[in-house]
Amino acid sequence: MVKKIAVLGYGVVGSGVVELFYKNKKKIEANTHTELDVKYILDLREFPDDPYADKVVHDIQVIIDDPEVCYVAECMGGVNPAFQFVNACLEAGKSVATSNKQLVAEKGDILLAAAKKNNCNFFFEASVGGAIPIIRPLHTCLAANDISEIAGILNGTTNFILEKMFCDKMDFADALSLAQELGYAERNPSADVDGADACRKICILSSLAFGKHVYPESVYTKGIREIAKEDVQLAQELGGAVKLIGAVKRLDDGRILPTVMPMVVLNDSLISHVNGVFNAVMVWGDGVDKTMFYGRGAGKLPTASAVLGDIIDAVKSNGTVDSQSWEAVEDNSFVAGMDEFKAPRMYRLENISEDSVIKTAESVGISVISQTNSGCLVSSCDEDKAKEFADKLESIGIIVKAQIPVLEDN
Amino acid sequence: MVKKIAVLGYGVVGSGVVELFYKNKKKIEANTHTELDVKYILDLREFPDDPYADKVVHDIQVIIDDPEVCYVAECMGGVNPAFQFVNACLEAGKSVATSNKQLVAEKGDILLAAAKKNNCNFFFEASVGGAIPIIRPLHTCLAANDISEIAGILNGTTNFILEKMFCDKMDFADALSLAQELGYAERNPSADVDGADACRKICILSSLAFGKHVYPESVYTKGIREIAKEDVQLAQELGGAVKLIGAVKRLDDGRILPTVMPMVVLNDSLISHVNGVFNAVMVWGDGVDKTMFYGRGAGKLPTASAVLGDIIDAVKSNGTVDSQSWEAVEDNSFVAGMDEFKAPRMYRLENISEDSVIKTAESVGISVISQTNSGCLVSSCDEDKAKEFADKLESIGIIVKAQIPVLEDN
Repeated sequence: MVKKIAVLGYGVVGSGVVELFYKNKKKIEANTHTELDVKYILDLREFPDDPYADKVVHDIQVIIDDPEVCYVAECMGGVNPAFQFVNACLEAGKSVATSNKQLVAEKGDILLAAAKKNNCNFFFEASVGGAIPIIRPLHTCLAANDISEIAGILNGTTNFILEKMFCDKMDFADALSLAQELGYAERNPSADVDGADACRKICILSSLAFGKHVYPESVYTKGIREIAKEDVQLAQELGGAVKLIGAVKRLDDGRILPTVMPMVVLNDSLISHVNGVFNAVMVWGDGVDKTMFYGRGAGKLPTASAVLGDIIDAVKSNGTVDSQSWEAVEDNSFVAGMDEFKAPRMYRLENISEDSVIKTAESVGISVISQTNSGCLVSSCDEDKAKEFADKLESIGIIVKAQIPVLEDN
Repeated sequence: MVKKIAVLGYGVVGSGVVELFYKNKKKIEANTHTELDVKYILDLREFPDDPYADKVVHDIQVIIDDPEVCYVAECMGGVNPAFQFVNACLEAGKSVATSNKQLVAEKGDILLAAAKKNNCNFFFEASVGGAIPIIRPLHTCLAANDISEIAGILNGTTNFILEKMFCDKMDFADALSLAQELGYAERNPSADVDGADACRKICILSSLAFGKHVYPESVYTKGIREIAKEDVQLAQELGGAVKLIGAVKRLDDGRILPTVMPMVVLNDSLISHVNGVFNAVMVWGDGVDKTMFYGRGAGKLPTASAVLGDIIDAVKSNGTVDSQSWEAVEDNSFVAGMDEFKAPRMYRLENISEDSVIKTAESVGISVISQTNSGCLVSSCDEDKAKEFADKLESIGIIVKAQIPVLEDN
């Protein structure tokens, strides 16, 4: 019996799913030992010139009611009506693969429970890192590990902008304009540059790694709008680069601290060399030590590759894959706030007089790792100490233009 | 019912498997919804002071005959008696996870067939890239892709040696001695420095990606013994590094070309920044474009992490996972030889006179990409053309000290 797939949303990703499916149909069928076909494409629009125009439908109910449809690829984006549609598909026992990070970050717990209740799967490999295999490796290959930390470049748009500021000495505004021209950034770029996109992804990774749903509201999130090209230049002088880093750490008390913020990444960290629209995710565990996954964070076929990988896994799975799951939570007290955040820091300074920086650092109990005419790197400290240092510098006439935490990659 | 695990070989990896299993037993049991325990440790030696001394047995038959033992971790190394032991376990319906690349590269087809016949699994995530999740992502997350190429740093020992030659200007011999002192290289370092270890790993990756068993004998394999520190230095001047690269490419005629050889990797390739004993594997597919997996290529707990990831998957699998498999082959005509190999090249030269290199290159139909006083990079060409260029250079009095292909990372 041929098992049927429905694709929700026929935009960039949805059309990529259909294209890649038919390109590699034989291979996919051999891998799954199952005959497969795309039966429906749900979209509000018509696509009269499309080779698959005859599969286009406008009513989700057609898909929900069709028992031939076993698998659904959700590529619509946004929470409404994606949530209602996906939930209805799961309730009908159809497994769903999604590329929609907002949906997973905001409603993952509910949809995972719906999948479990109906003995099917809610998969979301494409929601983090686009093409990069990260979700499945986390709960399969790395399943014997106690995960302690995850940190990555989870947004290609900001990584492209920061690279242009780094390599071509562009201002943020010019680099953003270029990203928009090239189609890497939206006309309203807020979700990318203000960190919401990276925040959703670190929510998903945190939820999966630590077993409880982390909602976007509980994650400290800072974008890259305030990064000046002088910050990027100083980082370069000090042997690093500025990257927007989504990260989560498990604290000693068992709570976790997820953050999204621009960070300085020193050159000896592989992630500092991840450029352009590529993404990379590092994972630390007590068995593997450190591992990294790298690839295209977005794009038609790369994202489709991840969605279809999920469909293939859904075909082969015998019921719900419990390990790709997490619990809903009543309160978020397991998520720590920035008062627990510690990191080395880069300070961009003006009006430095000789030895003044080192002496001031000493006086507050931190040490200067390296220094140039326009700033310094100091040893790890918490937010209070970082502010105390800045205040003391200002009190002796040194102007603090910026302070950016440094990613520790051990 | 508690399902039992047997560990074959209680050396570095085997003891790591036992240690990591007990450290994260609760997490592993939660992931698999199965109570698990290590029942036997097979080794010729006694370990009277070991906390698990009571589990040590010396006769494989005890394990084979015990119906409680469902899973076997093979960490002995070598083909004999590992092959006989693993085969007997599979024939008894016990799934086996191995870290033994030699076993998989030489006998994988037979053992995969034995697993299939007995509805159990022969898994080998740890056999390539140690801790790095690569085997499972290849046949799951990337399953919707037509894989066109794989290239990676598959041997940490040689990567450490080449890094020492690069960063500390050491000779090969001194760098090897240091690697031996630090325990990264064996007293007989041949398997590492002559490429056999990397060859076994590219055999495994090639077999899995292209579906037919690739035996080590059919892979062109060249190690790093002939690499001089002047080669490493020239690569640096030309904006790259020398790495031992295991690679496989699918040719236009459908055949594949697996190779192991030192290659120049230019700095804009992420893999050029992979240092020390770390490994990294790049995979190109028609969906994902390019992706990379990075981590520790060896070591007690990193390798144990991969072996236990396999055990966890074996517990959760309902019968044989067919996609992690390949066919035995009667002839190896699908494997192409070096006459099909094409790449840009680095030439280390002496006695260069002005313009002579560019003119000679032009005369044989290749172009010079960049040049220094001691060598050049030229555009992609096959082995015949590469030799023709070298011969012509020699004929005008330029001495060709070395020629090293360049990895193309597009």
